Amino acid sequence: MTAERFKVLYRVTPSDGRPIEAHAKDICIEQTVEVPEAAIPPSHWQQGLVGITESIEPSTVLSGAFDVWISYRVDITSNRIHGLLNVLFGNISMLRGIKLVDIEFAMSQLQAFRGPRFGTEGLRSVLGVHRRALATTAIKPMGLSIKDLASLCGAFARGGLDIIKDDHGLVDQHFHPFKERVSRNMDALRRANEKSGGNTLYYPMVAGGFEQLDADMAHAKHEGCFGVLVAPQLIGPDTAFGLARKHGLSVQAHPSLTGTHFHDPRHGMTPAVLLGKLFRLFGADISIFPNMAGRFSFSPDECRELGQALRQPMGPLRGAFPAPAGGMTIEKIGDMIDFYGHDTALLIGGALLRYDANPEVSARAFVQAINSTLTEAGELT
Amino acid sequence: MTAERFKVLYRVTPSDGRPIEAHAKDICIEQTVEVPEAAIPPSHWQQGLVGITESIEPSTVLSGAFDVWISYRVDITSNRIHGLLNVLFGNISMLRGIKLVDIEFAMSQLQAFRGPRFGTEGLRSVLGVHRRALATTAIKPMGLSIKDLASLCGAFARGGLDIIKDDHGLVDQHFHPFKERVSRNMDALRRANEKSGGNTLYYPMVAGGFEQLDADMAHAKHEGCFGVLVAPQLIGPDTAFGLARKHGLSVQAHPSLTGTHFHDPRHGMTPAVLLGKLFRLFGADISIFPNMAGRFSFSPDECRELGQALRQPMGPLRGAFPAPAGGMTIEKIGDMIDFYGHDTALLIGGALLRYDANPEVSARAFVQAINSTLTEAGELT
Repeated sequence: MTAERFKVLYRVTPSDGRPIEAHAKDICIEQTVEVPEAAIPPSHWQQGLVGITESIEPSTVLSGAFDVWISYRVDITSNRIHGLLNVLFGNISMLRGIKLVDIEFAMSQLQAFRGPRFGTEGLRSVLGVHRRALATTAIKPMGLSIKDLASLCGAFARGGLDIIKDDHGLVDQHFHPFKERVSRNMDALRRANEKSGGNTLYYPMVAGGFEQLDADMAHAKHEGCFGVLVAPQLIGPDTAFGLARKHGLSVQAHPSLTGTHFHDPRHGMTPAVLLGKLFRLFGADISIFPNMAGRFSFSPDECRELGQALRQPMGPLRGAFPAPAGGMTIEKIGDMIDFYGHDTALLIGGALLRYDANPEVSARAFVQAINSTLTEAGELT
Repeated sequence: MTAERFKVLYRVTPSDGRPIEAHAKDICIEQTVEVPEAAIPPSHWQQGLVGITESIEPSTVLSGAFDVWISYRVDITSNRIHGLLNVLFGNISMLRGIKLVDIEFAMSQLQAFRGPRFGTEGLRSVLGVHRRALATTAIKPMGLSIKDLASLCGAFARGGLDIIKDDHGLVDQHFHPFKERVSRNMDALRRANEKSGGNTLYYPMVAGGFEQLDADMAHAKHEGCFGVLVAPQLIGPDTAFGLARKHGLSVQAHPSLTGTHFHDPRHGMTPAVLLGKLFRLFGADISIFPNMAGRFSFSPDECRELGQALRQPMGPLRGAFPAPAGGMTIEKIGDMIDFYGHDTALLIGGALLRYDANPEVSARAFVQAINSTLTEAGELT
């Protein structure tokens, strides 16, 4: 019986004069058995434990590079996040000239990881927002009093935003400790929702010490939070997604500390692979990323491909919302919807604080601007 | 009262024509309050919650770059790994042209994180090896039977190696599940140590699912393992180091998935900062990294600085062993000791498997080669 395999596309740029076939074989060995070729037992080859180069083609998009498809046995990853990331890019992250640009998962992987708990349709159903893009924001800046943060939370909810999250810099500081912050923000949110008849959701940032994470997720759930904000590369991706699943919480994934994968077109993972395909596979309902128009370095193509990776068909997995962020403004909403489509969670943070002195007014303008993209197109709101 | 601050050195390469002062201020804001400057409450400046540019000098080592020292309030990190990494490099990882090259910690940080549990002196004392470099290896390849892995473990121990670890690709696969693997390897190790009178140590790789990590560490401790191998960027650095500390285990840190910090001299963290200063602060007794002579991309300068970062005085923190690995051979040991000094944990993996058909013979040759570097220099073994 042949063991099930999955396929990975690496864009490889050789720089040492050796043939591309040799580089491909290096990856096959490095990411699996990690011994010199002469030390690999013959049975390892027969059992397919070593990676297999499936095809090599010159890249059509990157000069001097080759598109190399390599397959791995599914079971060498234990079908867990740690094992999968290790095989995909663990050791070769320390080489140069290897860009991980696509993954074709086996069905058993999609079934094991399960993807978003709610996904785009589940979130829309909970929010009662069926067509338009979502209006989301962050409460900040870090360092405000809990009272001020809760006041912002309430005002944004009364203004009709769909989702409010903590700024990702709000961890467990003594001036706004996690548990009290979550309780007070949920108090404010409930009052606002009762008044408005809306259903604004709040996702607190969970990033306390490793021994608190489980209890913090439980606290968020107990206080009525619909989901949590996690930075998988800060607290560990398996812990982040696994604990949220355990507690039945929706997940917004934050890209903190992932950026060194993206700044070099010849090395790392693409945003579409890491923040798109992988974070969706692991369970993100919403994946936050730096928008092309802002202060970060993503290109329009990278943003488009990331949006596609989150929403395109992927076996039984639900789709997830891309959440472009960073330097977004209400004025840009029309352009953003044109580019990303309506299945997008627009995240406007700082600009919302500056739009009007009253955050409720800013929130209302934000939602209204999104609604107008539907009516302008002759669609029902 | 002024809140305690720590200082971070960023090497910044501006590429947009704006003055370096503007880039420095961007970092100060992005890594703390993350709102447009106009939206920062005046009290935030007064309380020092925003980063402060302490100095700017043209870089003497990287053309077009500037050395920018920025200070942050200690308490905005909660003195936890998640908060610290977030402030150091979380969001700016997604920018370009920012290299994190040094950190001057406040005393309260050194006291909070505590560093290596055993350190170089503690490990030497346990091993009874007081002068020479340590001889360490990995059992592999992934996919061997547990019986074969245990057999390798026993042979390496009888040959007198100091430390044996799992290859980092050995996670919790069904063909060598963690718990049984650890038990059998420790059986083999105990028998070998009894026979040889030595004290070879075994560090298993802990990388099962998030819900198993605590129990797996407990199992390793219960079976008599002195330490564990962890890949902080796979399972989460706070979880990795925190659980090991909870169970009183020594830590070897593996650099899997860290490499995108290192391939670009203008962006990311240097090996000395991430694998050196930070992993030591968090608690690594041994930090594994790709040696300059092997198949990876580290330069001699990077390797030297990493070794220094692990061993130089750092308040009350113990020193840690650098463990150069990757493409190492017994023949290179003399050169390696000349370069790194005796306080080094030499890690020879694949080459040891190829040196002799009998791993006990290979291990003995490895230790003998290290011993000869002392006797050649006229030192006591």
